[in-house]
Amino acid sequence: MVSKNQIKLITSLQQKKYRAAHQLFIAEGIKVIQELVASNFELEHLYTTQNDFQEVSKDKKTTISETDLKKISALTTPNTCLAVFKIPAEKKIIESGLIVALDSIRDPGNLGTILRLCDWFGIGQLICSKETVDIYNPKVVQATMGSIARVNVNYIDLESFIKETQLPVFGTFMDGTNIYKTNLPQEGIIIMGNEANGISPQLEKWAKNRLSIPRFGTLQKTESLNVATATAIVLSEFCRNLNTEI
Amino acid sequence: MVSKNQIKLITSLQQKKYRAAHQLFIAEGIKVIQELVASNFELEHLYTTQNDFQEVSKDKKTTISETDLKKISALTTPNTCLAVFKIPAEKKIIESGLIVALDSIRDPGNLGTILRLCDWFGIGQLICSKETVDIYNPKVVQATMGSIARVNVNYIDLESFIKETQLPVFGTFMDGTNIYKTNLPQEGIIIMGNEANGISPQLEKWAKNRLSIPRFGTLQKTESLNVATATAIVLSEFCRNLNTEI
Repeated sequence: MVSKNQIKLITSLQQKKYRAAHQLFIAEGIKVIQELVASNFELEHLYTTQNDFQEVSKDKKTTISETDLKKISALTTPNTCLAVFKIPAEKKIIESGLIVALDSIRDPGNLGTILRLCDWFGIGQLICSKETVDIYNPKVVQATMGSIARVNVNYIDLESFIKETQLPVFGTFMDGTNIYKTNLPQEGIIIMGNEANGISPQLEKWAKNRLSIPRFGTLQKTESLNVATATAIVLSEFCRNLNTEI
Repeated sequence: MVSKNQIKLITSLQQKKYRAAHQLFIAEGIKVIQELVASNFELEHLYTTQNDFQEVSKDKKTTISETDLKKISALTTPNTCLAVFKIPAEKKIIESGLIVALDSIRDPGNLGTILRLCDWFGIGQLICSKETVDIYNPKVVQATMGSIARVNVNYIDLESFIKETQLPVFGTFMDGTNIYKTNLPQEGIIIMGNEANGISPQLEKWAKNRLSIPRFGTLQKTESLNVATATAIVLSEFCRNLNTEI
């Protein structure tokens, strides 16, 4: 059974201002919840339609009907469970190795996919401009598939940070040098730009290392790449010569 | 002005069976429509709220209100225009160079993104299992950003085709050889598998060249890659040594 007040609180967490006010976020689906429970995220409460999650203590768990799950879910087709977690305090930025910097990424699916890519390529630090979609947006949490537990994410004034860093700064531009023919270092900041406008002029001036992903199409009208697929290609190039794969 | 019958016909095209019955599909947004008009797609009719598309003859164009556009649009936030195009006859498969083969890709966004990637990397042929989402699904058409006009797409019995081909057949698997350390040819069929289940056993037995994308994360729980980002990495590796970029 879920009370009206609980329904109101949980559904309010679909909005950023209420997540900020309550310092809580929601996650749905067994896999994502399991990964968050197993990591350092503090579970506030779990709602499940099944007799599962034996690792969660009884006072943190309520078995509910599918009808009730529908009332609290952010999904059109709800899963079997929804959990409310505390938003952890932001950790200090780890300023070494490769860091991905996102300049106003707006689409939750793109942010989630990029976080999964960072996780895959062993990149532990993601820094986002304050205009980037919130990492605790339910659609982002779903798309990360649990990677949110393993990559450190900070929302900062990107320009101030990048201006001061000692790390080399990379960006992809139409007129950059062919990424396939460039020696890429094992540390640096890789800026990925907004879906519609690319990297903003304020950041562009600090991206001294201009890269481009060559296009192989024979027709000129080929569209630009989606930012998540561009990130996949860029990270693959930065990491392909490393020997640290597990 | 749009008549009730037109609204009924146009909205029915959101469903595959009506697209098949009428041999028509819809596209929304100036960019996508322009690319389709400029290519070989035959325009049935254009509905626009603006005084644009001067290249389209008057009898193929109706200026409508935003209210009417809302009635025929498949989008939550409609653009300024919607066009109905004829579904072209399937062309013969071009069995040379690199071909991407999709084994039951279900998500329209993934199919659209993969089509854009093929276009970017100059891959002219995409073959899809009959279970793969329809390329003329409105969400796919939107996600392709016009690439649908430049890549040949065929829906076929993949197993029969792959069994008979003379081209080398590639697939990505957990136990494959490191794609970064494998010499990749300039022709072949690259199978990408279903979002949840990967490559099906019927096709796996024909994928004699087993590749893997190494994982660089230090934690073992890293999720698999999304199929569109995996395709980005695989195509980037197959193409990175080519010198045909424009």
